[in-house]
Amino acid sequence: MSYPILDKINGISDLKALKEEQLPALCEELRAFLVEHVSQTGGHLASSLGAVDLIVAMHYVFDSPNDKLIFDVGHQAYAHKILTGRKEAFSTLRQENGISGFPKHSESEHDIFNTGHASTAISAALGLARAMRLNGDPHMAVALVGDGAMTGGLSLEALDDAGQDKLPLLIILNDNQMSISKNVGGIKDSLTTMRTNRTYNAFKRSLTGVLETSRFGKLLSRHMEHFKNRAKRFLAPNLPFEEFGILYLGPIDGHDVRKVVKYLRRCRELNKPMILHAITTKGKGYPFAVENPEKFHGIAPFEVMTGKVSAERQKTCSEVFGETMLRLAKENEKIVAITAAMPSGTGLTEFAKTYPDRFFDVGIAEAHAITMAAGLARGGLRPVAAIYSSFLQRAYDSILHDVCLQNLPVVIAVDRAGLVGADGETHQGIFDPAFLSTMPHLAVYAPSSQKELSAMLEMAVSRKEPSAVRYPRGSLPDVPMKTKLYFGEWEIVEPIQKTVIVTYGTLLPLAKWVAKKKGVGLINARFLQPVDEEMVAYFRENDTRILVLEENTVSLGEKIALLANPCRVRSIALPCEPVAHASVTRQRERYGFTEENVTKELLELMEEA
Amino acid sequence: MSYPILDKINGISDLKALKEEQLPALCEELRAFLVEHVSQTGGHLASSLGAVDLIVAMHYVFDSPNDKLIFDVGHQAYAHKILTGRKEAFSTLRQENGISGFPKHSESEHDIFNTGHASTAISAALGLARAMRLNGDPHMAVALVGDGAMTGGLSLEALDDAGQDKLPLLIILNDNQMSISKNVGGIKDSLTTMRTNRTYNAFKRSLTGVLETSRFGKLLSRHMEHFKNRAKRFLAPNLPFEEFGILYLGPIDGHDVRKVVKYLRRCRELNKPMILHAITTKGKGYPFAVENPEKFHGIAPFEVMTGKVSAERQKTCSEVFGETMLRLAKENEKIVAITAAMPSGTGLTEFAKTYPDRFFDVGIAEAHAITMAAGLARGGLRPVAAIYSSFLQRAYDSILHDVCLQNLPVVIAVDRAGLVGADGETHQGIFDPAFLSTMPHLAVYAPSSQKELSAMLEMAVSRKEPSAVRYPRGSLPDVPMKTKLYFGEWEIVEPIQKTVIVTYGTLLPLAKWVAKKKGVGLINARFLQPVDEEMVAYFRENDTRILVLEENTVSLGEKIALLANPCRVRSIALPCEPVAHASVTRQRERYGFTEENVTKELLELMEEA
Repeated sequence: MSYPILDKINGISDLKALKEEQLPALCEELRAFLVEHVSQTGGHLASSLGAVDLIVAMHYVFDSPNDKLIFDVGHQAYAHKILTGRKEAFSTLRQENGISGFPKHSESEHDIFNTGHASTAISAALGLARAMRLNGDPHMAVALVGDGAMTGGLSLEALDDAGQDKLPLLIILNDNQMSISKNVGGIKDSLTTMRTNRTYNAFKRSLTGVLETSRFGKLLSRHMEHFKNRAKRFLAPNLPFEEFGILYLGPIDGHDVRKVVKYLRRCRELNKPMILHAITTKGKGYPFAVENPEKFHGIAPFEVMTGKVSAERQKTCSEVFGETMLRLAKENEKIVAITAAMPSGTGLTEFAKTYPDRFFDVGIAEAHAITMAAGLARGGLRPVAAIYSSFLQRAYDSILHDVCLQNLPVVIAVDRAGLVGADGETHQGIFDPAFLSTMPHLAVYAPSSQKELSAMLEMAVSRKEPSAVRYPRGSLPDVPMKTKLYFGEWEIVEPIQKTVIVTYGTLLPLAKWVAKKKGVGLINARFLQPVDEEMVAYFRENDTRILVLEENTVSLGEKIALLANPCRVRSIALPCEPVAHASVTRQRERYGFTEENVTKELLELMEEA
Repeated sequence: MSYPILDKINGISDLKALKEEQLPALCEELRAFLVEHVSQTGGHLASSLGAVDLIVAMHYVFDSPNDKLIFDVGHQAYAHKILTGRKEAFSTLRQENGISGFPKHSESEHDIFNTGHASTAISAALGLARAMRLNGDPHMAVALVGDGAMTGGLSLEALDDAGQDKLPLLIILNDNQMSISKNVGGIKDSLTTMRTNRTYNAFKRSLTGVLETSRFGKLLSRHMEHFKNRAKRFLAPNLPFEEFGILYLGPIDGHDVRKVVKYLRRCRELNKPMILHAITTKGKGYPFAVENPEKFHGIAPFEVMTGKVSAERQKTCSEVFGETMLRLAKENEKIVAITAAMPSGTGLTEFAKTYPDRFFDVGIAEAHAITMAAGLARGGLRPVAAIYSSFLQRAYDSILHDVCLQNLPVVIAVDRAGLVGADGETHQGIFDPAFLSTMPHLAVYAPSSQKELSAMLEMAVSRKEPSAVRYPRGSLPDVPMKTKLYFGEWEIVEPIQKTVIVTYGTLLPLAKWVAKKKGVGLINARFLQPVDEEMVAYFRENDTRILVLEENTVSLGEKIALLANPCRVRSIALPCEPVAHASVTRQRERYGFTEENVTKELLELMEEA
């Protein structure tokens, strides 16, 4: 591929030297560059394609890093990385020691605030704006935020707080076609040509006229997209922003880069909080991504000419979860499912089609998902809320305060538990064992195979206490369960000897390999809470030596060390530090989950005086 | 006192048997009853006085527990407790084995959903409403929510989700005079007499007229109340609720019980989500509480005729924190303070007056408080966010994802850490050591005296990593620091012997007493993270026997057990269970923090074979 303009851009000063009329061509080159490279590395293609023009305009108009550009979630910021000196490095995207798929301050001074989880950008931008004011710095904070992220409580809390100061704070609402209704898309020239320098009253009057004829929100299909439609209503060019004290501008075509430049220049002059509403198309410029933005949201390497991903497929845990839910829901009509904007990611698409009345997609709003589930449980239903481990951190208090203290039978399906690979530090599911295992009444299940996952989910929905079933990204072995599942009991995989390895979930195969070779015992700790106290007592009484393996920050290792005290206990777990992107295999190696290291630790433990 | 009507009410059927014209007198009796009793027990008086009429009307109109009445936060629900069979028990309010100060399902079937933290009620009500729909139950979910709780992200997430179903869900917005501007209060009869059975368009037209003349929000004083004013703007009788798909009714006078009854009856007939906006006065009916609602929010026993609290006062940790902040802010202009709606509770009132530009009250929005602080830190400031331990649970992900992963120098002042006494299980600050100690880069400080608190805060704001300084409700000893504070180092209080006690914070005096008596060593573990690895290595090398005392769920005890393995380690910590209300002294006794029990455990440890 040839990139005549992009080839000359090695930093944003080169971008600023371009003539405005060159920008559209630059955007096309950037899109081609993205498709070429992401087809080789994999990554978040569709959203990054959609945000190219907005990002080019942002850097063309604003003065990063003096102006603070913040990217909500951050997976749409690839063009930003390319324009700020990481063009050459872009072929290392998401690879070990390569550049991250998300903004990282350690990578570039232009990545002013690290992101990963949704809905943080407005809060962070407001903090930066306040800091600049106190520092006497006249620059501006600019947050690029997707429409989906607007349903998150953190965004709404920040909007509520943002209106009170007359700070120069710009929120660019990147509203992609995927979630916008055709009639909003149909709000026409009377809006898009509206000028920011009209008086505000005139602005409101014209707006009202347009709204009365457009009546968006009425013709929308309900299912799956409804939370985004609600966000849309909330974000509509209407009074709410004014009520928040925030000036609303738009909507404009987010792919008309020169128009975006024009608006951003005006925004730069306005010394107040404001929202610029830009309509974009997810996947813009690559037909396969436009047609199937969900597939191309986060994608493995693919063939550019066909859009096909080559990798062979194993059944994922999410699929096993989804199938089990369908079976259980058929048997028990009290079972309902909840997702926070991840119906397909969590394997619930089929459930949503089969049981639309028993399926609730609450949007990016994990805390509400869990507290609402507590209400469903009090109402006699059996709610199962499927949320990624990392995102579940958002709901810590809802789990503890609304579910656990009340001992309500909510089942949390903790997807993407453990190391997640290329998404890197913001997405690792490595903290949930530590935080879930201190919550009253909560049973924490850790399946090590597909069948165990099914059986545990079935057990969890049949019992009366709150529970969490945690399973990894990707797949677990499709092997038979050798012993039946009993609540709170660990499985003896290899007979207990003078020394045992205790582990759970993904690390069982590695542990088994080592245990067999070295002739030590092996325990599959199916429950992280409650722990199998009888077995731990046996260890204590027999002075068993125990090696605990955990693909997360230490949790069970510490518990056993105290409960089995003074047995000799060693732990191999993740250190309390950010775990950077790389393949899961490489991440495991890096932290000592290898045959060699486990064997070494085991031998040292066996030989201790 | 005599209560001619109330005396005959032993359950809600007695209430329903009253004639409507008796209700105002009942409300007066309830208020007198509340003042009489709370003056003896202490409790949340002001908000409970303000909600009497709303609660009487709710029970008069709705059919609890078939209709589901949910009380956000729950401290305003005393009248509800009295009306639902707990009149006799009311003298045991917040006492050990007495009734709780918050709704408790275990206490009454009328306490349909336990509350304590703000902003959960709409989520829970929506879950209950959805459950009733699926169960074919025609009853209604009713949430009584204060205006302050509306700034919480969870409320906003729930509102966003609530509009999509045409479910019979009623949110009664209890908007107390304290936080409402006079001009909103001045919206007059044209609104209050507006009928719910008018057509909605007519409703909107009349509203617009009123709004244009009232222009609330303009004449308001900025400081301290501004977040509530923003909430007010957000909640104003305006389009936002319509945009959320929720019918807005009101505002009405929330002390006109017969009018409230009339409105609730109409609401009961409307099969949709709606908000009834009621204006009330915090402290209504007791002049001292009306004049000083903040003092009477949660109050100790007091003299009815004077409003005076008898108890003598020790300097609280919050006061020490506030004074230290003033001193540090004077020395370092980069220091700024953040609170989430608790300026006086956290001791920041004086700071807010002295440094209004460097003080941010973000409303009940803990997650935003922390993420915004991360933005301030990235902008070069030194933010200190003061939040109660229990409420900090709301910000788990913001601490981990926005502060710790980025290693930003945000200081979290964790107030009310440890047992909190009469507020009971929803307010215990007993989980933060466990969850904070697994977060990357975070330093966790645990002062055991006023001077240590000051010194630690000073150290925290001078260093470059994120930190949390946790201190209890009430006071710490005002004693000199015997040894200087060094980062990451524990203090040797009594020389290390064959056996040592390790503890931190509030339990140090008890531990010292026992250690001196029994001649064992004593360590003040000033840092929960990082742990003093050198000292732990010393323990390991010398086979020291270690008793760890923690006034929270086990955290340091487990860590030491693993790190000092195979030393003999015992732990006295709180079990992983809800800790019910009682005095802190009694709670400590209940969980074994007594000289007798600590001595017993110590002796057993010393005698182990």
